[in-house]
Amino acid sequence: MNIVGELINASRKKIRDDIKDKNYDVIARVAKDQFENGADFIDVNAGIFVGHEADYMKWLIQTVQENVDAPCCIDTPDPQVLEEAIKVHKGTPMLNSISLEKDRYDKMIPILKGTDMKVIALCMSDTGMPYTREDRMKIADQLINNLVQNNVKLENIYVDPLVQPIGSGDNLGMEFLNTVEEIHGKYEGIHTVCGLSNISFGIPSRKFMNQSFMIMAITKGLDSAIMNPMDQQMMANIIAAETLAGKDPFCEKYMNAYREGMFEFK
Amino acid sequence: MNIVGELINASRKKIRDDIKDKNYDVIARVAKDQFENGADFIDVNAGIFVGHEADYMKWLIQTVQENVDAPCCIDTPDPQVLEEAIKVHKGTPMLNSISLEKDRYDKMIPILKGTDMKVIALCMSDTGMPYTREDRMKIADQLINNLVQNNVKLENIYVDPLVQPIGSGDNLGMEFLNTVEEIHGKYEGIHTVCGLSNISFGIPSRKFMNQSFMIMAITKGLDSAIMNPMDQQMMANIIAAETLAGKDPFCEKYMNAYREGMFEFK
Repeated sequence: MNIVGELINASRKKIRDDIKDKNYDVIARVAKDQFENGADFIDVNAGIFVGHEADYMKWLIQTVQENVDAPCCIDTPDPQVLEEAIKVHKGTPMLNSISLEKDRYDKMIPILKGTDMKVIALCMSDTGMPYTREDRMKIADQLINNLVQNNVKLENIYVDPLVQPIGSGDNLGMEFLNTVEEIHGKYEGIHTVCGLSNISFGIPSRKFMNQSFMIMAITKGLDSAIMNPMDQQMMANIIAAETLAGKDPFCEKYMNAYREGMFEFK
Repeated sequence: MNIVGELINASRKKIRDDIKDKNYDVIARVAKDQFENGADFIDVNAGIFVGHEADYMKWLIQTVQENVDAPCCIDTPDPQVLEEAIKVHKGTPMLNSISLEKDRYDKMIPILKGTDMKVIALCMSDTGMPYTREDRMKIADQLINNLVQNNVKLENIYVDPLVQPIGSGDNLGMEFLNTVEEIHGKYEGIHTVCGLSNISFGIPSRKFMNQSFMIMAITKGLDSAIMNPMDQQMMANIIAAETLAGKDPFCEKYMNAYREGMFEFK
């Protein structure tokens, strides 16, 4: 599982003021905590600071990379912010995100074209949110083909089919999961990713629901997630599911996790 | 999920002596507990009492059915025991089990033929245990076709593709899960069933592993299980997974389970 640590995000109340005050030690600690708990990428988002987003974004990237040896996932819808951010980033970042929304797409493509950057490709278009697998696949196919035509390698594309709340429709979970499965069947080497907590929006015992849905998504092939790597129960579920899905030769990761006490909450 | 309560089984140390001593109150209580916690069928097994199996089996069936309004799952490899057991059973039982092993198959078919009994069809043949999806499907196809030719309805067939320990091979989990998916795709109205705890044989934190595997199996279509319905964590996992799999209109079962405190251990 490729884990994008989601905690350094200005939309989270807990971190907003620390970003605003450029509280170096806090950001450094949150970056380190996530990295030490398994994050492969550190998401950085300063979206709420309108007019100053680029400044905060650059500071976040520098702070993170001075403290952990991991690439950032640059989380902005603004191509200008992105361009400035890329300049200060060491190594190859992940971009979060491109979609089929024309405005966003047209400005992101020139930045991505021919580079080795990784990109999250959201299944969104100007006609709105997709609900069925078919609708998601239409957007995914078009996005993937366009990206490939612009010399973005399949293995650098992380398709996010968009999780919608199960409370809004009984089939929304399976429509998402079946899209994940179809994408992996159709495009060898591609990745799928999501921020899955939306599945439990409006429903009680959300953490439990989210953990179950993660296991289901891994069963269908999901290989990346935007999540909180400090959530030990979720991490334990991921390890068990990946072992059961045949992605853990000789159960080695599972056994290591067991020895480290990862399953002790059970 | 169709739940076959597995607790009244003479191979379990805890219950063996109660069966041997025909301890009516204990068997009645175990039957009631399972029924009240969601068992649709009560498995009865007296296999270790060689020479007296039929006698104990009949007593078990009568004891169970005097106390709960549920059919039994008559668990014996011996066709003679089965015939005697069926005579005392009220309503339509489930038979556990037929397989492609010639001896067993030849003697079970005349008992099943043209009846409305439900039957667990084990993916076993005289050539031994299957390991791949292909091997399982070969046996499943043959068994299903034979049963249908003998006037057993598809909706009365519960195929058990046989769970094997993940510790014996990294792919054994997915081979099982993909068989479940293929069977449901190929035979509309059929059921799949398993006793899934074998997946975690030889591995620590077994309960956690089993819970994760149950969620994965539901994702692939598993609709029945031989299990302990008193295991609240497992039952909670089943409820969440079925809701997420679109089998719980308006999240009604999930919400009821929440109100009953089913998720409180989390």
